[in-house]
Amino acid sequence: MTRYEKLADEIDGMIRRGVYRPGDRVPSVRQAARQHDLSITTVVRAYLVLESRGAIESRPQSGYFVRARGAAGEPMLDASTPIAVSSTVDVSRLVLSTLRSIARDDAVPLGSPYPDSALFPSQRIARHMHAIARGRTRWGVVDDLPPGNPELIRQIARRYGERGVAVDPNEIVVTIGATEAINLCLQAVARPGDTIAVESPTFYAMLHAIERLGMRAIEVATHPVDGIDLDALARILEREPIAACMVMPNFQNPLGFCMSDARKAALVALLERHDVPAIENDVYHELHHGEVRPSALKSFDRRGLVLHCASFSKSLSPAFRIGWAMPGRYRDQVEKLKFLNTLGTPALDQLAIAEYLGHDGYDHHLRRIRKTFAQQASLMAAMVRRFFPEGTRLSQPAGGYVLWVELPPACDAIALYRLALAERITIGPGHMFSTTGNYQHCIRLNYSYPWSPQIEDALRRLGRLVARVAHGGGHDGHGKDEGKGGTKPRKRVTNRQETR
Amino acid sequence: MTRYEKLADEIDGMIRRGVYRPGDRVPSVRQAARQHDLSITTVVRAYLVLESRGAIESRPQSGYFVRARGAAGEPMLDASTPIAVSSTVDVSRLVLSTLRSIARDDAVPLGSPYPDSALFPSQRIARHMHAIARGRTRWGVVDDLPPGNPELIRQIARRYGERGVAVDPNEIVVTIGATEAINLCLQAVARPGDTIAVESPTFYAMLHAIERLGMRAIEVATHPVDGIDLDALARILEREPIAACMVMPNFQNPLGFCMSDARKAALVALLERHDVPAIENDVYHELHHGEVRPSALKSFDRRGLVLHCASFSKSLSPAFRIGWAMPGRYRDQVEKLKFLNTLGTPALDQLAIAEYLGHDGYDHHLRRIRKTFAQQASLMAAMVRRFFPEGTRLSQPAGGYVLWVELPPACDAIALYRLALAERITIGPGHMFSTTGNYQHCIRLNYSYPWSPQIEDALRRLGRLVARVAHGGGHDGHGKDEGKGGTKPRKRVTNRQETR
Repeated sequence: MTRYEKLADEIDGMIRRGVYRPGDRVPSVRQAARQHDLSITTVVRAYLVLESRGAIESRPQSGYFVRARGAAGEPMLDASTPIAVSSTVDVSRLVLSTLRSIARDDAVPLGSPYPDSALFPSQRIARHMHAIARGRTRWGVVDDLPPGNPELIRQIARRYGERGVAVDPNEIVVTIGATEAINLCLQAVARPGDTIAVESPTFYAMLHAIERLGMRAIEVATHPVDGIDLDALARILEREPIAACMVMPNFQNPLGFCMSDARKAALVALLERHDVPAIENDVYHELHHGEVRPSALKSFDRRGLVLHCASFSKSLSPAFRIGWAMPGRYRDQVEKLKFLNTLGTPALDQLAIAEYLGHDGYDHHLRRIRKTFAQQASLMAAMVRRFFPEGTRLSQPAGGYVLWVELPPACDAIALYRLALAERITIGPGHMFSTTGNYQHCIRLNYSYPWSPQIEDALRRLGRLVARVAHGGGHDGHGKDEGKGGTKPRKRVTNRQETR
Repeated sequence: MTRYEKLADEIDGMIRRGVYRPGDRVPSVRQAARQHDLSITTVVRAYLVLESRGAIESRPQSGYFVRARGAAGEPMLDASTPIAVSSTVDVSRLVLSTLRSIARDDAVPLGSPYPDSALFPSQRIARHMHAIARGRTRWGVVDDLPPGNPELIRQIARRYGERGVAVDPNEIVVTIGATEAINLCLQAVARPGDTIAVESPTFYAMLHAIERLGMRAIEVATHPVDGIDLDALARILEREPIAACMVMPNFQNPLGFCMSDARKAALVALLERHDVPAIENDVYHELHHGEVRPSALKSFDRRGLVLHCASFSKSLSPAFRIGWAMPGRYRDQVEKLKFLNTLGTPALDQLAIAEYLGHDGYDHHLRRIRKTFAQQASLMAAMVRRFFPEGTRLSQPAGGYVLWVELPPACDAIALYRLALAERITIGPGHMFSTTGNYQHCIRLNYSYPWSPQIEDALRRLGRLVARVAHGGGHDGHGKDEGKGGTKPRKRVTNRQETR
């Protein structure tokens, strides 16, 4: 247990034992630091943990006060209710330009799609690369060809086995990240012009694959904790031909939910009844915040209809671009498409990751980053609650490293994104997660980076910008105070009620 | 100059000065080795060089004899005359299964599509990888995103500049090998169902891209030295809509020709008149046998209609899968498609190759492999002439590392491929290079591996198998003598006259 966790537990215990009562002021950060002989940073972190637990709250210019427990919880996100009409997809330009600006080295990376790269064992993997290259003078071509390096495939299958998913190594096809896996799986099951059912909001990688292949997307109502609405999906399946359903049952990006086993089984059964394949994007499955590893949708698949896609980009490092597909009955088509699409996957990257998985304490690494992400989810939520205006609502991620934030309805996320970028803060605008203009008042925040004064300050400033944009001041002025900059109030109100 | 080159020149000089005259027997390998105090291998190599120059010939059981110079040269390959009708494409399964068997470590790799990996500086590049990974704890995402790592792009542009091709670095998009580049370029310019004009025979990577996108191919008559027949192409362009033309003007795989500048300019002008984009696959441009670097088709492009694709897979190593496209006016579409298709290209591989290009004597490496390939082209041709039956004809590669061998018309290359594989010899059957069943009596041989008794023996055995298959014995018996094994003569005669 870290020092700040210890302090948080200590103060929490005093509150529970009645030493501090609701409405009482707890010691200031400075006092607590002196009393416990701790750094200011440690105390700030401890207080953020307490805030995220709902134990204390911060009152501007006054300090921290004990909250009344058991009061009405904070407002939950509603389930989404997208219009159930398919549409063409064209989000990639927005996503690419956003990701590019997000990647600026000098910006606070709240919009990044990747975890903090400082957490990854890239050096260790590169050391394997070097040792492997040094050890051989000849390179066969076979390891480079689909389905991929046999040792890497064996290691991947082994991990599924340990997770309780019986996997035939012969089903695995190694790809360039999950991105290629998703593309190949979609191409294997659907034709241009076909309609694909997706969650709402949905991860843009799904939309990209649909866009690339000239298909149409239909967004399905999705609950922020339970996942895709099976009744809504059933109605769509009965109404019109759906070529495939793309889902992210574990720690969906952006909502962070984890579907229950019962719902996963019901989803597979529903799709089986309609003979519709499911493409499962499971890139976050290793990043559960709780103790329990989530099951894969694939493990409920009896008929080879689930095309499972995953990668090491989120759990090990995006630098190596190693992903894979387990495409069920579509395995041969996917392997052939892999061969046509990129021929092979870089040999050294495959070999080095296989070596790392075989020897290097991947599990230890995962335990560490899981704990980090779980703690920082609370910290980020606490900061957003503290700094963002009334009407803001948050997701409750069960895994992964992103928080979905619904802003007051009048707040346009692209306007906010531009203002924030001018202040060197990046965010992920909600526009990236839908084809139908939903979620234009939502943003995705990355909480994988450790708490720092810079990040806290960025969230404070972001909260001010949200308030300004929500009040119509989003289109002018960089760094001016709220309310002053607006030439015209933004008229466009884009809350989800409009789209019902 | 190597010892065997010196010996070859010495003997050649004696022939030219009349010391040995046509019909004279030159010293046996054993004698020459003793006389010159050289190894048997060195003398064998020298004699192969002399044979390839047409200076001497081998007579079974008798030794080497001086040939009459200026006699009718060996029979040249004819220009191809494919039927000018488009067809769907479905070669990838054959190619994948062939490449896979070719990659067997225990087989003589005459069928390999890759150069001998022992020639490549993989260790040096991996050392850069390690150093780069060690030197940083954080990985940005921007370098990983399209268009690719800026330093790598700068290095690629620099090399084009030194080759006399003025390149705007902003036009370059880094890809997963040339395979992805070709796929993205084709998708940017054509739709499913469109017809694409290709050389005949054509490199299967072109056919794969056409197959993947559900397009049709039309093969254009191609001359073994001059390249694609511009008149034949013009007739096709006038007759029917062609969405793109895919060519390999430099050291085409499998024919090895290099189009002249005049023909390159004429090809671009012809395509411009019809407003048809050209996809140029230039992966072998660094592997010229002569002193002169060939020009790129791209350098004759004034209107952005040439989409140029290349990679380091053939000149530096296929293990890293780094390629690129310069897609002219289609640059933005290609960049977007790259983003959709595989998101990014592995970061360490990009960085390490950029580092290598910046510091490590790529030119020195290239000079070495060019010389090796040029010498071994002659050696391989000499061995084929010596061991293969009457009626065999060869390409005269001006660069690269493959030889195209036209066998006697009755010889089916797939039958030969199977028999050879049973003897642990791989070859590239001609079936891979066409959609229309041409070239079923042709094979591609890789000569990048240094001469060895094993390779010579493999060619000797291959020659015997060719004779057997040509006489109808291709479907039975492993390792039996010619003429004995056949249960039924093969009836199917598949020479190119049939396809006129």
